[in-house]
Amino acid sequence: MNETHQDVRHLGRLELLTPGPERTLWYFRDVLGMEAVHTQGKSVYLRGYGDYAAATLKITEAANPGIGCVSWRTSSRAALERRCKAIEHAGLGVGWLEEEFGHGRAFRFRDPDGHLMEVYYEEQKYRAPDHLRSTLKNLPQKFTARGASVRRLDHLALLANEVAPNRRFAQDLLGMDLREQVIFDEGKLEIGSWLSPNPVHHSIAYVKDIKGASGRLHHISFWVDNREDVLRAADVLVENGIAIEAGPSKHNNSQGFYLYSFEPGGNRVEIYSGSYLVFAPDWEPVTWNEAERGTGVYWGTPLPESFINYGTPDVEATTAGVQPKIPVFDPI
Amino acid sequence: MNETHQDVRHLGRLELLTPGPERTLWYFRDVLGMEAVHTQGKSVYLRGYGDYAAATLKITEAANPGIGCVSWRTSSRAALERRCKAIEHAGLGVGWLEEEFGHGRAFRFRDPDGHLMEVYYEEQKYRAPDHLRSTLKNLPQKFTARGASVRRLDHLALLANEVAPNRRFAQDLLGMDLREQVIFDEGKLEIGSWLSPNPVHHSIAYVKDIKGASGRLHHISFWVDNREDVLRAADVLVENGIAIEAGPSKHNNSQGFYLYSFEPGGNRVEIYSGSYLVFAPDWEPVTWNEAERGTGVYWGTPLPESFINYGTPDVEATTAGVQPKIPVFDPI
Amino acid sequence: MNETHQDVRHLGRLELLTPGPERTLWYFRDVLGMEAVHTQGKSVYLRGYGDYAAATLKITEAANPGIGCVSWRTSSRAALERRCKAIEHAGLGVGWLEEEFGHGRAFRFRDPDGHLMEVYYEEQKYRAPDHLRSTLKNLPQKFTARGASVRRLDHLALLANEVAPNRRFAQDLLGMDLREQVIFDEGKLEIGSWLSPNPVHHSIAYVKDIKGASGRLHHISFWVDNREDVLRAADVLVENGIAIEAGPSKHNNSQGFYLYSFEPGGNRVEIYSGSYLVFAPDWEPVTWNEAERGTGVYWGTPLPESFINYGTPDVEATTAGVQPKIPVFDPI
Amino acid sequence: MNETHQDVRHLGRLELLTPGPERTLWYFRDVLGMEAVHTQGKSVYLRGYGDYAAATLKITEAANPGIGCVSWRTSSRAALERRCKAIEHAGLGVGWLEEEFGHGRAFRFRDPDGHLMEVYYEEQKYRAPDHLRSTLKNLPQKFTARGASVRRLDHLALLANEVAPNRRFAQDLLGMDLREQVIFDEGKLEIGSWLSPNPVHHSIAYVKDIKGASGRLHHISFWVDNREDVLRAADVLVENGIAIEAGPSKHNNSQGFYLYSFEPGGNRVEIYSGSYLVFAPDWEPVTWNEAERGTGVYWGTPLPESFINYGTPDVEATTAGVQPKIPVFDPI
Repeated sequence: MNETHQDVRHLGRLELLTPGPERTLWYFRDVLGMEAVHTQGKSVYLRGYGDYAAATLKITEAANPGIGCVSWRTSSRAALERRCKAIEHAGLGVGWLEEEFGHGRAFRFRDPDGHLMEVYYEEQKYRAPDHLRSTLKNLPQKFTARGASVRRLDHLALLANEVAPNRRFAQDLLGMDLREQVIFDEGKLEIGSWLSPNPVHHSIAYVKDIKGASGRLHHISFWVDNREDVLRAADVLVENGIAIEAGPSKHNNSQGFYLYSFEPGGNRVEIYSGSYLVFAPDWEPVTWNEAERGTGVYWGTPLPESFINYGTPDVEATTAGVQPKIPVFDPI
Repeated sequence: MNETHQDVRHLGRLELLTPGPERTLWYFRDVLGMEAVHTQGKSVYLRGYGDYAAATLKITEAANPGIGCVSWRTSSRAALERRCKAIEHAGLGVGWLEEEFGHGRAFRFRDPDGHLMEVYYEEQKYRAPDHLRSTLKNLPQKFTARGASVRRLDHLALLANEVAPNRRFAQDLLGMDLREQVIFDEGKLEIGSWLSPNPVHHSIAYVKDIKGASGRLHHISFWVDNREDVLRAADVLVENGIAIEAGPSKHNNSQGFYLYSFEPGGNRVEIYSGSYLVFAPDWEPVTWNEAERGTGVYWGTPLPESFINYGTPDVEATTAGVQPKIPVFDPI
Repeated sequence: MNETHQDVRHLGRLELLTPGPERTLWYFRDVLGMEAVHTQGKSVYLRGYGDYAAATLKITEAANPGIGCVSWRTSSRAALERRCKAIEHAGLGVGWLEEEFGHGRAFRFRDPDGHLMEVYYEEQKYRAPDHLRSTLKNLPQKFTARGASVRRLDHLALLANEVAPNRRFAQDLLGMDLREQVIFDEGKLEIGSWLSPNPVHHSIAYVKDIKGASGRLHHISFWVDNREDVLRAADVLVENGIAIEAGPSKHNNSQGFYLYSFEPGGNRVEIYSGSYLVFAPDWEPVTWNEAERGTGVYWGTPLPESFINYGTPDVEATTAGVQPKIPVFDPI
Repeated sequence: MNETHQDVRHLGRLELLTPGPERTLWYFRDVLGMEAVHTQGKSVYLRGYGDYAAATLKITEAANPGIGCVSWRTSSRAALERRCKAIEHAGLGVGWLEEEFGHGRAFRFRDPDGHLMEVYYEEQKYRAPDHLRSTLKNLPQKFTARGASVRRLDHLALLANEVAPNRRFAQDLLGMDLREQVIFDEGKLEIGSWLSPNPVHHSIAYVKDIKGASGRLHHISFWVDNREDVLRAADVLVENGIAIEAGPSKHNNSQGFYLYSFEPGGNRVEIYSGSYLVFAPDWEPVTWNEAERGTGVYWGTPLPESFINYGTPDVEATTAGVQPKIPVFDPI
C-alpha cells in the first residue's frame, strides 16, 4: 500500500450510450424505478433513491450502445491532483473537463483498453424537492416503490482486449485492490479481474473481450438491499417485456446474487444484491481456474453463451452499420 | 361435518365505508397498489393483482367509517339456495339483492351482532385490459409493482358485543371451522374466535367489542407473498405519511406476520403474510388464556392500547357527531 | 361438483423407496432438517416441523428408488367408506391395510398407471416430546433451524404412461379439481395435469413418462414459507455436496418457486414456496401449449434435459440391474 | 482528512465477559450458529462463517458481564506504529501485548471512558478444517445452517459517561468518520455518536450512560445478509428460550434492521442487516434532535425502557454484589 491507495474513493457515475434514448429512459425510470433529475443536450441524468449524489447515471443518445465516461470520485482535492499527475505521467491523460451537472472539474483519461474515464472531487449532494423528500432523515430521497426500485449504483464490468494491462492500471494508477481473478490455461490466460478501491467487493471488473475488440462494456450494475428484491425485480422485468439474460441466481465468483437484462438500447444491466465486503488490508486475491470457475454460477444452470459473446457496442452490428441485435430470451 | 360444511367456499368481497372516499381510494390504489376497475354511484370497486374476481374491495362514501357488506361466495347455486333457506329460517335474512358489479344475485343477511353480509354464487372473473394483462398466463392481472403491491384479499376481523353467538352462527350457518380462540377468565370469557370455510387459517375473526357496541369493524386484511413484502410495505406506508399502528411483527395466535395501518377514512387495514394452512378435518381449535395470549405477539413489543380500544365506526366520534379520530403514531 | 368432491381432504403421507436408506435419512434429517420420529422394519418415519400429523414421510429400503405408497386423508370415516366403495367398483382396489404407525386402517388401491395409493381417515396428531416442544402453542413442533428447515409436505408429481386416464381417475374417484394442464400437438397430447382436492394449487401432478414406463416418480415436494428460504436451501444443498438439478427459479405453470435436487437414493426432491391458492369453485383450468409452456420457467434458463428424461426407478438402470445413475451437476 | 485517516482499517475482534461461560458459549455456538475454534485459559474463541479472520469473538469468564478488549486492525505495520505513538502521546496507552491466538502483537490502550482497546496488524486468516471447508472458494468456512447462522461481526455500541470526548478520540486518534449523532437540548447534549473507519455505516457507537457509570457495554452486533434472516433469527431465539428485548424492526438512525436479545451471561447482542454504506469522503453527519429521534425506530413500537437503562456490567447488580438481572420479556 502506498499513497496511491485511497486517492480514489468510489465509483461516482456512469454514462451509458444508447441509440434509443426514450426507451432507455423508460427502462431506468419506470421499470428500475430511478428518478430523472436533469436533462442537458442529448443526456438525461438519473439517480437511485439511496444515492447520495445528485446523479449517478447519465444516459446519452449515440449511434451505438456502449459505455460513455466512467467517473471516479477522489478522497480530496489533493488526491485529485495526485491522480491527474500520475495518469498524465503514464501518458493516458485526455484533459480537464470543466464542471458539468452534479460535479466539479474532472480530469479525463483512458484506460489502456481505451475506455473513457475521469476522476473528480467536487460532488453535488442530492437535495430532494418536497415531493421526493423521505420521511427518513438519513435517506437522500423518498423510497418511491416504483418498479424494481434499485437503491444505488454499485459497479460496472468492462470488456478488454487484454485484461492484465487494465488490471494493473487500476491497481497502480487508481489504487484499487485486486479481489478475485479468473485465470485459465494453467495461470497464463487472465480471463477476468475484479477490483475495488473500498470494501465493496468490486467496483469494476475487467473481462477478456472474446471478439478482440476494445473499449466495450459488459454490464453496469445497481444494488438492491435483499435477495427477495432481486426476485421481485425479475417479475417486474418480465411483466414489462424486458428479456432476462440470466438469473436470478448466485455467482460463485463474488457471491453476487444477480439478474441480468438488456435495457432497450442494447446494454446489459444487472440488478444485484448479496456478495460480501472485503475488510482485510492484506487480502489475498481468490483465483479460479477453468474447473473451479465452471459456468460462473454457484447454483443451477450455466450462464448462457451470450454472456460471453455479447457486449456493447455489438461488434458485428457496428461493422455492418445495422441496429445492435439484443440477444432474445423468450419470457414464456 | 354435515352438508352445511362446504356450502360457503371463500370470502369474496368486502365493502368498506369511508367519510373520505378520495383519500381512501388514494390509499388503496397508490399506496397499496390495487387497481380501481369500476365506479358506480358513491362506490369504487378495486382488486389485488392476484384476485381472480373482477373486484374484491368496494369503497363506499358514508358518514362514518366501518364495514359495509361482507360477501361470501358459495360452492354452487344449490349451496346458495341452501344457505338462503337456513339463514332465513334462523330469522337473520334481509333479502335478495339483484346483480351488482362483479357478481350475480346475492342473499343478504345480518350476523347476530348486526354486521351486514351476503352469500352469492355467480362471480365475474377478471379479464384484464391489454395494458394490465400479465405475461404469466395463470396470473389474472399484470404485477404492476406499485407501492405495497398487495396480492389479494385475505380476511377480516369484526368486533362483536358478544363473540359466542356470532362464532356459533359462522360455524352452524356458514359452515366454518373454528381454528383458534382467546378465552379469558378460566374459560368463561370468549375474547376472540378465528374461523374459516377453507384451509386458509382464518377468513373471519370475531373479537369482543370492548366498548359494548355492535356492528363494528376491527380490520380488513390483504395478502402479500413473503415477509419481506410486509417489511417493504412498512417503508412504503411511512414514506406516504400513513401511520403504522403495529408491526411488522408476528402474532402468536395465527402465526400471521402483520402490519396494521389506518387508511385515511379511519379504518384499520392489515398487510399480511405467513400464518399457516389448516388441512385436518378434525382440527382441534387452539385456545389461549390470558397468560398464553399475552400481548398477542410472538416476538417483541406488545400491541398498543388502540388495538383493543379502536374500531370503526369510532363510538365516541359517532355519538359526538364529529370526525373519527384516528390513533396517531408519530412516524419519526 | 358432486359428493365425490370433498371426500379426500389432503395429501397425508408419502413413502419413498431408496436403495441407500442411511444416506437418504441423512439427507432428509440433516440437510432438509426434518425429524425422524419412528423406525419400523426397513422404514423410518419423518416429519416437517409444521406438519400436524405424526409423520408425513416414510423412507423404506428397496432395491430401487421410486415412490412407495401415496396416502390421502379423507374428510371423515363415511368419506373413507364412500371412496373405498367407488374405487373398488372401478376395479382398482387392492385391499384394506390395518393400522400402521401414525394412522388407522387404510384402503389401498392403484391408480390406472399402477402407482400404489391409499385413503385413510384416522390420523395420529403429533405430540412433541419436551425437547421438541415449540414455544408457539399452535406450532406442532419446535422450529429447530437445522439445514433447509422444510416446514411441511406439499405435493408430488408422478410419471404416467398416459396422463389422461390418471387425471380422470383423480378427478372422478378422488374428487380433485383440475388446476392447470400442459397440452401439446394442438390439444391432442396431454403432457401434464396438476390437480388438488383443496385450495393448494396442486397436491398431485401427472406428467407423461417419456420412457413409456409405468408407476414411476418424478418428484416429491416440501414447503418453506418464503422464497428467501428456498435460496438459503440452495446454499445448504451445495455445502452438503447435493447436486442441484434446477432452480432456485420460478415456474410459469403453478408460479411455484422451485429448487430440485436428488436425495442420495436417487429420487428427485423439490423445496418449494410461492405458487398460489385457488378458491374459485368454478375454476377454469389454465392450459399451456408448446409455445406458452416454453421451457417451464417464467424467468431465466430452461429446465435441463434430465428434468424430462429422469424419473425413479431409472428405467435403464433397473433393466440393466445396476445402481441408478443420478444426473450429475457440478456444483462448482 | 489526514494521515490518521485510514490507519485503522476495521473492527477485528471483540472480547465479551460473562459470569456464565457455558451458557454464553451455547448461545453463540448453538443458537447464533458460530464456530468455536480455540480454547485458552478462561477464554473461548469463535467466528462467524463469513469472517475472514480465525476468530472475531472471544468469550472470557469473569465475575460480571461486560466488554473485555475491543480490537482494531490497522492497514499496515507502519500504521500500527503511528497509532501506537499517537495514542501514547495522548496519554492513553496501556502497553504492548505479545501475540495471542489469531493475531500478532497488539498495542493496548483505553478510550477516555476507560474501555480497553487495542490496535494490531498481523491477523491469522482462517483455514477451515476439512469438515468446515466451504464448496464456495471465496467463502472462508462452510455455511453450516445452524440456528441463526450469523455471518460476521459487524459493530459494537459502548456506553460512556460523556460521549463527546470518546467520539473525538475515535475521530482524532483512530481516524474514524462521524456518521450520525443524536443531540438533545438544542444541540447541547450529545446523546450518541456513530462512527466508522470504513464505508460500513458504523463500526462503533458511543451512547450516553444514563447511570453515569464508565467502561460499560450497550451491545455487540453480528451481521446477516437479508432482513428475512433477522426474522428467522427471532423464531430461533424464542424457540431457544432467549428473551428478545426489541425488534425485529428498523431503526431511524442508521436504517439498521435490528433484533436485540440477551445472551445468558447478561450482555445485549444484536442480529443485524440492512443499514447503508457511506462512500462520500465529505459526508455530513446526520443529526437527530429529540423530536426527530423519537423512540429510535422508523416503524412501529418504541424501544423499551431497558434499552436506555440497561448495560453491562449492570451497575446496581455489581454494587450489590449479586448476579446481574437480565430484563425479562415474556416470549408469549
